[in-house]
Amino acid sequence: MSDAASNRVTIDPSDTVLLLIDHQAGLLLTVRDIDAAELRTNVSVLATLGELLSIPTFTTASEPDGPNGRTIPEVRSQAPRARHIARRGEINAWDNEDFVSAVRATGRKTLLIAGIWTSVCVALPALAARAEGYRVYAVMDASGDVSEFVSRVTLARIVQAGVVPTSVNAVISELQHRWRGPLDADFAAMYMKAVPSYAAVVDCHTRTK
Amino acid sequence: MSDAASNRVTIDPSDTVLLLIDHQAGLLLTVRDIDAAELRTNVSVLATLGELLSIPTFTTASEPDGPNGRTIPEVRSQAPRARHIARRGEINAWDNEDFVSAVRATGRKTLLIAGIWTSVCVALPALAARAEGYRVYAVMDASGDVSEFVSRVTLARIVQAGVVPTSVNAVISELQHRWRGPLDADFAAMYMKAVPSYAAVVDCHTRTK
Amino acid sequence: MSDAASNRVTIDPSDTVLLLIDHQAGLLLTVRDIDAAELRTNVSVLATLGELLSIPTFTTASEPDGPNGRTIPEVRSQAPRARHIARRGEINAWDNEDFVSAVRATGRKTLLIAGIWTSVCVALPALAARAEGYRVYAVMDASGDVSEFVSRVTLARIVQAGVVPTSVNAVISELQHRWRGPLDADFAAMYMKAVPSYAAVVDCHTRTK
Amino acid sequence: MSDAASNRVTIDPSDTVLLLIDHQAGLLLTVRDIDAAELRTNVSVLATLGELLSIPTFTTASEPDGPNGRTIPEVRSQAPRARHIARRGEINAWDNEDFVSAVRATGRKTLLIAGIWTSVCVALPALAARAEGYRVYAVMDASGDVSEFVSRVTLARIVQAGVVPTSVNAVISELQHRWRGPLDADFAAMYMKAVPSYAAVVDCHTRTK
Amino acid sequence: MSDAASNRVTIDPSDTVLLLIDHQAGLLLTVRDIDAAELRTNVSVLATLGELLSIPTFTTASEPDGPNGRTIPEVRSQAPRARHIARRGEINAWDNEDFVSAVRATGRKTLLIAGIWTSVCVALPALAARAEGYRVYAVMDASGDVSEFVSRVTLARIVQAGVVPTSVNAVISELQHRWRGPLDADFAAMYMKAVPSYAAVVDCHTRTK
Amino acid sequence: MSDAASNRVTIDPSDTVLLLIDHQAGLLLTVRDIDAAELRTNVSVLATLGELLSIPTFTTASEPDGPNGRTIPEVRSQAPRARHIARRGEINAWDNEDFVSAVRATGRKTLLIAGIWTSVCVALPALAARAEGYRVYAVMDASGDVSEFVSRVTLARIVQAGVVPTSVNAVISELQHRWRGPLDADFAAMYMKAVPSYAAVVDCHTRTK
Amino acid sequence: MSDAASNRVTIDPSDTVLLLIDHQAGLLLTVRDIDAAELRTNVSVLATLGELLSIPTFTTASEPDGPNGRTIPEVRSQAPRARHIARRGEINAWDNEDFVSAVRATGRKTLLIAGIWTSVCVALPALAARAEGYRVYAVMDASGDVSEFVSRVTLARIVQAGVVPTSVNAVISELQHRWRGPLDADFAAMYMKAVPSYAAVVDCHTRTK
Amino acid sequence: MSDAASNRVTIDPSDTVLLLIDHQAGLLLTVRDIDAAELRTNVSVLATLGELLSIPTFTTASEPDGPNGRTIPEVRSQAPRARHIARRGEINAWDNEDFVSAVRATGRKTLLIAGIWTSVCVALPALAARAEGYRVYAVMDASGDVSEFVSRVTLARIVQAGVVPTSVNAVISELQHRWRGPLDADFAAMYMKAVPSYAAVVDCHTRTK
Repeated sequence: MSDAASNRVTIDPSDTVLLLIDHQAGLLLTVRDIDAAELRTNVSVLATLGELLSIPTFTTASEPDGPNGRTIPEVRSQAPRARHIARRGEINAWDNEDFVSAVRATGRKTLLIAGIWTSVCVALPALAARAEGYRVYAVMDASGDVSEFVSRVTLARIVQAGVVPTSVNAVISELQHRWRGPLDADFAAMYMKAVPSYAAVVDCHTRTK
Repeated sequence: MSDAASNRVTIDPSDTVLLLIDHQAGLLLTVRDIDAAELRTNVSVLATLGELLSIPTFTTASEPDGPNGRTIPEVRSQAPRARHIARRGEINAWDNEDFVSAVRATGRKTLLIAGIWTSVCVALPALAARAEGYRVYAVMDASGDVSEFVSRVTLARIVQAGVVPTSVNAVISELQHRWRGPLDADFAAMYMKAVPSYAAVVDCHTRTK
Repeated sequence: MSDAASNRVTIDPSDTVLLLIDHQAGLLLTVRDIDAAELRTNVSVLATLGELLSIPTFTTASEPDGPNGRTIPEVRSQAPRARHIARRGEINAWDNEDFVSAVRATGRKTLLIAGIWTSVCVALPALAARAEGYRVYAVMDASGDVSEFVSRVTLARIVQAGVVPTSVNAVISELQHRWRGPLDADFAAMYMKAVPSYAAVVDCHTRTK
Repeated sequence: MSDAASNRVTIDPSDTVLLLIDHQAGLLLTVRDIDAAELRTNVSVLATLGELLSIPTFTTASEPDGPNGRTIPEVRSQAPRARHIARRGEINAWDNEDFVSAVRATGRKTLLIAGIWTSVCVALPALAARAEGYRVYAVMDASGDVSEFVSRVTLARIVQAGVVPTSVNAVISELQHRWRGPLDADFAAMYMKAVPSYAAVVDCHTRTK
Repeated sequence: MSDAASNRVTIDPSDTVLLLIDHQAGLLLTVRDIDAAELRTNVSVLATLGELLSIPTFTTASEPDGPNGRTIPEVRSQAPRARHIARRGEINAWDNEDFVSAVRATGRKTLLIAGIWTSVCVALPALAARAEGYRVYAVMDASGDVSEFVSRVTLARIVQAGVVPTSVNAVISELQHRWRGPLDADFAAMYMKAVPSYAAVVDCHTRTK
Repeated sequence: MSDAASNRVTIDPSDTVLLLIDHQAGLLLTVRDIDAAELRTNVSVLATLGELLSIPTFTTASEPDGPNGRTIPEVRSQAPRARHIARRGEINAWDNEDFVSAVRATGRKTLLIAGIWTSVCVALPALAARAEGYRVYAVMDASGDVSEFVSRVTLARIVQAGVVPTSVNAVISELQHRWRGPLDADFAAMYMKAVPSYAAVVDCHTRTK
Repeated sequence: MSDAASNRVTIDPSDTVLLLIDHQAGLLLTVRDIDAAELRTNVSVLATLGELLSIPTFTTASEPDGPNGRTIPEVRSQAPRARHIARRGEINAWDNEDFVSAVRATGRKTLLIAGIWTSVCVALPALAARAEGYRVYAVMDASGDVSEFVSRVTLARIVQAGVVPTSVNAVISELQHRWRGPLDADFAAMYMKAVPSYAAVVDCHTRTK
Repeated sequence: MSDAASNRVTIDPSDTVLLLIDHQAGLLLTVRDIDAAELRTNVSVLATLGELLSIPTFTTASEPDGPNGRTIPEVRSQAPRARHIARRGEINAWDNEDFVSAVRATGRKTLLIAGIWTSVCVALPALAARAEGYRVYAVMDASGDVSEFVSRVTLARIVQAGVVPTSVNAVISELQHRWRGPLDADFAAMYMKAVPSYAAVVDCHTRTK
């Protein structure tokens, strides 16, 4: 496990692509390892983050006219510049040529992936991209799986293969890098959204001053 | 347990008062039996419900200039017509004459109470009002307590005394009474807010049509 | 709590009505206090039980053309003789005159109720019927609620009001009353369906003989 | 709830009968609310207690030649003087005339009941005996049920009906009444068996002296 | 459940006796329903509260020279004026004449009881005192039991008998009654000790000012 | 961990063998890390999958005439073409020459293994095959272990050794590869069986159209 | 992770040493990640296994005259031939020359280690021995740690270093290797002791025949 | 994973630096994977340990004038010689030159890191330092994260990168190395503070002697 993917600490926004895969209304209803509201909030924060830092963002959906349903609306509303790439039935988005070509065209080598189900829609592209040499981060709490048991199994599987598991609060931190910049208010808003108790802390602080 | 409080099923909006007690930013930080975001959402729905149905709504706060902090902003924003009643140090809001007088002045005998901590700010007024003959409903998931253990103890205590425990989804249902009225869209929005998975079900349904 | 409802032990099939309320596909997706597959199996066993013992069975659904969805198919397939009663928007089935009239017309005074959500679709009719003097059993594991927290609150509420909480395995037992009758095989099949580990025990026993 | 059953604190051994119902090997395999080893130990302690204090003890089994299996051996080995009463298919032991006659013949009015499943084999006789005026104690941790959910439902049901729920450590304590008698060593051994951490405390104390 | 014990809301310090029963080092090692450190802290707060408000406080221990061990030191250090009453082997402290006489001699009718094990050392005296007409509060989180399962069973048992279950934070609140008195700092210190997250809230508030 | 086993993403059906080991009725009764009904369903789906895609499938059982019991019937009914290989007492199926020879004779190098207990019947053959260079997938939720603790230990052990842990929904996805083929209905049925909430989503979608 | 320790599947009894470290009565009282009774049983089974197969077994204790206490008696009673090695204050048994010399003198290179606390008494010698090239197995459920959180951290730490985590049922299986040998009854007894539900399965099977 | 970081067992105090990062009152309020009181105690023990063994200790805080709040007071009170290093907005302390320089100036190569949030304030510096060749230990139970889910993800991430996860009780043990030295009493006090049940064991032992 001595390669760059694990040694590099800070995600470089200029080398990063954000992939939001199959956050569809029907699939969301099958998620059991994280609260649905929390998951929606976390995906929304990732989308906002991509928009704010101009990170190329791609969305895709699996059979959106079937029971899996359409992509939840907050993905588009938070990331209006994201490009949606339709698939032709491929379950693993990485099997779709348009999708992979779009990623490759960015010339970037770091991938942030979130999706529903983690065990399929996140794990399969993550493992494939990792095998091709990408640094791959799986944002676990912006993803969802069918049970807690399967969620733990999936975490073990992707870590075994060198995919780096992470969480939304860590992604914000790594991309923000430091306070005292022009986007401080934006980042603060994102932490408050992703970590509700932090919002209460900020409330207390603000009101007391 | 043969009295009216348990026999009557549907809450009559015209006989009801809504009491939102000590939903303060500092106290919110000590809640451990329910997710902070979920609690905020649930209180917000209760406030909206009171506003929508013109149910007299009273808010109060315990020592808001101290560490307990100010009332969280969504209470006021969702229930702009709610009347805030300041206390003079009384921990049990029912010990404050202004508060009790305000409730009595409505002439109503059914109380919906939510607050932080359930074991103190909800339980003590609820028990006091129940002892005076009010029908009292404690909205447990719009309230919060310091641990799951204390939360279970509190539930047992108030039920023992004849206070009726309930949840936000049940309160919406009892006050809505039936679909096919002019407020259907408002009620649907409240269910979707209080029960996130219901929002996804509605999403699926709407998009599919 | 000294009335008949709690003193009577065995449910008398000849005095019983089975009410299956709002077991709809959309609502099923919002259940979080019991596994969806287990809930479906348990409802199915109740329906079978009603059919087998010729217990009058009524089903109903809340706004089935909307997101709540249609009644899950196994209810009808297991209880083909059940009568479905449409509602006109009433959330509490007991507020629908057709429904209450149908129950009254049976002349029976013991109700077995299951439904989704327990906090609304079970609790409200159960409390109403109990207030009218019915013996009311709420079959908790053939019902479902929006969270474990709300599920515990609902259990406390209905018990407080004198509704008897029970489970599918207990209902089978009370209605079977004794082994060594002509329906032994049917009852055994129901236990095996409702309690999967019992099925394995029977498997072991049967194969070993 | 003002009757004798709840007011009387200490179980009077001279007024007590111990009923061990359906602790059968097959049923034991379906228990999911308590560890199988812990349940076996606890039943064994109850049997020992009955033997030691000459409390009339009755055992029974449901269809022991079928998949439910035979009574686990420690019941008989610990309580050799217990009388086993065969049933003729009745699920509720209280429906068996021989069983009820045997209890009545003792002239005692306090029942300690444990069994598998709690929801059926304990609850049904407990409710029936309570309805007939017996003081009834359900020893919850010497009993077992099919799930934690059903276990909580059953607890609520029997408490609602005035059956007193208790645990093996409490039963030992109430029957022992005070230390410094001739049976101290026997009681100490029972506490150590029922509460494994207490055994370690005693070990520490003994070795240190 | 219509008697005074449940109707009265605020504990009247002038009518109250505090009973700390069997908080012994050996027994503490067998507690499994609450963290040992949290339990010690909570007992310590109760002792402080008794001392501060001059509430008659009695401690006792079961066979302290045996494996149960001596009373944990913080009980005495926090409540130096508490009177320790030795027992002569009685398991239920209420069976000890000196203990009951001491309580009766105060002329007070409200009891706050905490102890280890809840199922025995709290429940038995609580039930006995309740049967004699005392208002009895069981402080559940200043007590400890052998398992979570037994803890839930015990809660149900004492509530059924009319003992009021409560928690340390509620006891502080009921005895404090209102802020803006001379003991505000003492009460604040007790809340901070009993609710660690409240201490952090106060820290934040204090430092920010 | 740089070898093919982790880099290859999609399981190639033409290189795969399915091994269903010791899914016996007696052993099933000892499983405590997954619901028995869920486990049976998941094994059944794996068997169906093997049959549908003509993946060579081998079953075996450990001492089926003893307490471990016979293979549960759904394995054979769903995979009628599976070959059963009897063992001569070997606990690790990989120690049985017939078993290993059968696998080798297929010329395939990817193994999908499920069994009861995961810690023994899955882990030992998986580790042995992995050591011989096979790509090995352990299907965790079609397997069962004696406790949650042991289940977590086993997951860590096999991952450490390069066995890839996976779940039934992921296996279906990897073998299906893409929608819009002739077997879509078969795959949909398998997802609906393995993920009950997905069945409800499909129900909603189908009925709404 | 490509070395022998993970590739070798079956533990070779002739190459194995069993190390039972600090299973002392005082330390046992601090264990919180596994039930005390279960842990004692599991250690006892390991000791029996060592005795039965003549595996060199070494026990040791940390400051047994202090609060840690003496080794629990079943270790010696089950493994009378085990050699106890006293330490001179070293916390890590591997720092004690006598201990390491004794292990080396056996000429064996596979270590089975269990102890209390897992995070210290198991982890430190396991890591040290692993660093010296031993194959090291940590028997997690015959060991105990101070919390579930610390237990999970420890598991991750030792796995990271190449120590193989395992459980008692797997150790029995690997050492038994195959049924149909002269020790079948002994092994069956060990499984029944380590896995209580297996004992019930055997009971059912035996009685039915 | 064959490098020194995992092979070396005992932490060498003379090669070690202790880094306590962002243990701030505001951040403490957002911790959800460990009890706040337990976390404070554990950090305090680490600080004491550094002071006692003269291990260079550095503290830092993220934007202490904002809502994150000031460092909790026990850090300074327990480690008065610790050097506090202010940051200029950097989120990852390792990005602050003063901080890294201070660490480098010690010439030591082993880092013990604890902080709030584990996923950010511990993980990012730990990964960075590990990438530079330091032996890095993350003291998980002296750190805190925003949820249990994120906590498990973070553990997997740092272990994957070769950071060694550990716990306070293990750190004390590794640094103490052996009993029977001049600091025995100090170490005993630390164990008693970090493991409350150990304190009770010591109490029992001491009082009994």
